[in-house]
Amino acid sequence: MSESSHIKLFIPGPIEVSEKTYKAMCRPMIGHRSGDFKKLYGGMQPRLQTLFGTNRPVFLSTSSAWGVMEGAIRNLTQKKVLNGMCGAFSDKWFDVSKRCGKDAEALQVEWGQAITPDLIREKLSQGGFDTFTLIHNETSCGVRNPLPDIAAVMREFPEVMFIVDSVSSFSTQPIPMDELGIDVLLTGSQKALALPPGLALFSVSERAMARAATQKDRGYYFDFVEFAKNQEQDMTPSTPCISLIYALESKLDDIFTEGVEARHARHAALNAKVHDWVKARGFEFFAPEGYRSLSLTCVKNNREIDIAEWVKRLREKHRIAIDGGYGKIKGKTFRLSNMGDETPESIDTLLAALDDTLA
Amino acid sequence: MSESSHIKLFIPGPIEVSEKTYKAMCRPMIGHRSGDFKKLYGGMQPRLQTLFGTNRPVFLSTSSAWGVMEGAIRNLTQKKVLNGMCGAFSDKWFDVSKRCGKDAEALQVEWGQAITPDLIREKLSQGGFDTFTLIHNETSCGVRNPLPDIAAVMREFPEVMFIVDSVSSFSTQPIPMDELGIDVLLTGSQKALALPPGLALFSVSERAMARAATQKDRGYYFDFVEFAKNQEQDMTPSTPCISLIYALESKLDDIFTEGVEARHARHAALNAKVHDWVKARGFEFFAPEGYRSLSLTCVKNNREIDIAEWVKRLREKHRIAIDGGYGKIKGKTFRLSNMGDETPESIDTLLAALDDTLA
Repeated sequence: MSESSHIKLFIPGPIEVSEKTYKAMCRPMIGHRSGDFKKLYGGMQPRLQTLFGTNRPVFLSTSSAWGVMEGAIRNLTQKKVLNGMCGAFSDKWFDVSKRCGKDAEALQVEWGQAITPDLIREKLSQGGFDTFTLIHNETSCGVRNPLPDIAAVMREFPEVMFIVDSVSSFSTQPIPMDELGIDVLLTGSQKALALPPGLALFSVSERAMARAATQKDRGYYFDFVEFAKNQEQDMTPSTPCISLIYALESKLDDIFTEGVEARHARHAALNAKVHDWVKARGFEFFAPEGYRSLSLTCVKNNREIDIAEWVKRLREKHRIAIDGGYGKIKGKTFRLSNMGDETPESIDTLLAALDDTLA
Repeated sequence: MSESSHIKLFIPGPIEVSEKTYKAMCRPMIGHRSGDFKKLYGGMQPRLQTLFGTNRPVFLSTSSAWGVMEGAIRNLTQKKVLNGMCGAFSDKWFDVSKRCGKDAEALQVEWGQAITPDLIREKLSQGGFDTFTLIHNETSCGVRNPLPDIAAVMREFPEVMFIVDSVSSFSTQPIPMDELGIDVLLTGSQKALALPPGLALFSVSERAMARAATQKDRGYYFDFVEFAKNQEQDMTPSTPCISLIYALESKLDDIFTEGVEARHARHAALNAKVHDWVKARGFEFFAPEGYRSLSLTCVKNNREIDIAEWVKRLREKHRIAIDGGYGKIKGKTFRLSNMGDETPESIDTLLAALDDTLA
């Protein structure tokens, strides 16, 4: 593929993948039960644990994040799951829960609004729940749910397992799993980590693992107990996506070379840059103040521009892809990612291209 | 990674991946709901159908083959599944069926023996079954089950869905899905297709799809109906492993440039070369004549050599990896792969290295 045909992605996943990452993906194959693989996976474990904020092992699933999102329900829901819903992906988790044959209840707020601690307390107080699902950063509408405050409420309901998806927020801000009492923290490779899709990462609390062990019909491919058993020997239950694991190792090098805190600060600064542009151009945010994602921005189309046309112009003139809104808010919003390896310069380039084509 | 540290894999998966394939994996990311992705997946569909011997669509699952093997059970088993078992992987399918909460029965033969049509007829005649699983080429012990004869028996039981795993045989010999009446044909990326692991391919008959549609609790990630619904628009249900799909497209170019029949003939010739070596060196085969895999050879250690030591010597002196036996036949067998891109020359190199280190 020639350079000129390359469209740089500022959509909220998959995002741009670096040359260094691609190079890492080209390392020769190794057997997945070999010492070489064990060294690869085992060697990454401490850094993965640091990023997850946990002393628990971190598992690698050869799937998109949805596999583990379904797996968490299969492994942990015995009575009833409450699904926190504020956008396309969190809404879908409710649907997926039911498809797994589980008793599920919706905690639905309007798309773009946050799921507040009080709403969760009210629902869980009704009793009967043993699992709660939350998408920390609802990618479809740029909402960042107030994780620390929600975690505080979850402590009031110790029988309820707290399952958190962090696909578009992981590694862009601190999410201290153990400290917050999260039972399952999961993420995917193709958003905040800037790897190609196909790999999901997750960690499971001790008490959640104990519950999984008592669960019937949890299957094999996403069986948490199998992941734990294999991880003890630095292996995965099934043949893993070795190339993506090489890429992950390379990305961990990047992250720890930059420094985890510096990485968080960079994402906050890039996000602020985008926010400044949004305000300066007379646009509004889809999510309310205080509940806005730090890794992507969902912008309300209050200027009523033809988003589809604009996205097309951007792509043709500047070889840049942004997202023109997801599902039922297509055309009414647009989304700009500042995930991954972006820099002040690359975000400036994006914003200049937006200005150039907006007129 | 320097060239000198590169160990060439003749283990039966993952196997050696070509430079051309790695290069294909480095094409820039695209959105998985974009026209670019639809063109990529849609463009491959006719060639995938040719390889599967089907008019049905071919689906791409971001998982190892085990995901689809579990998925087939979840989607299709309503009454009881019969699992044909003749080695580590087919034995495990029985275990996985039970873990999905299904009523499962074992059709167990000794490891290394084939599952014969008569055994299947006898079991299925007892009634109550609605699914049968077969691993065409049992990779752990080099058995090739007699697929056409088994398919003929399956026609006597039209209520039983016929699920066939072809992970290590796919594309190395004809497996005409529609002609044989196979209901689910599945394969993985890292064996016969010589791609990195992380992608599974499968196709589902019309009648199996109709049954899946009536099935409860089939979940989401491996829901066949979701795959069908998305494939109609050249998409996948979840974010797919785009890099591996690029690699698959490149591999299809390789396969159709060589010619499908020529590819089959090459695998047969390379396999015969290995078989000649086995006989000339006084070794025996683990599987009986007529039931031996064409893509890998499982050799009986009748010369009682120290296999582990030999494997180590080969690795150190020749930078070649072979497998020293799987599970309970470790040390009692060894396995040589002739899958993927091997040539008469590369197999000669392997055999010379075996001779050099066997003494």
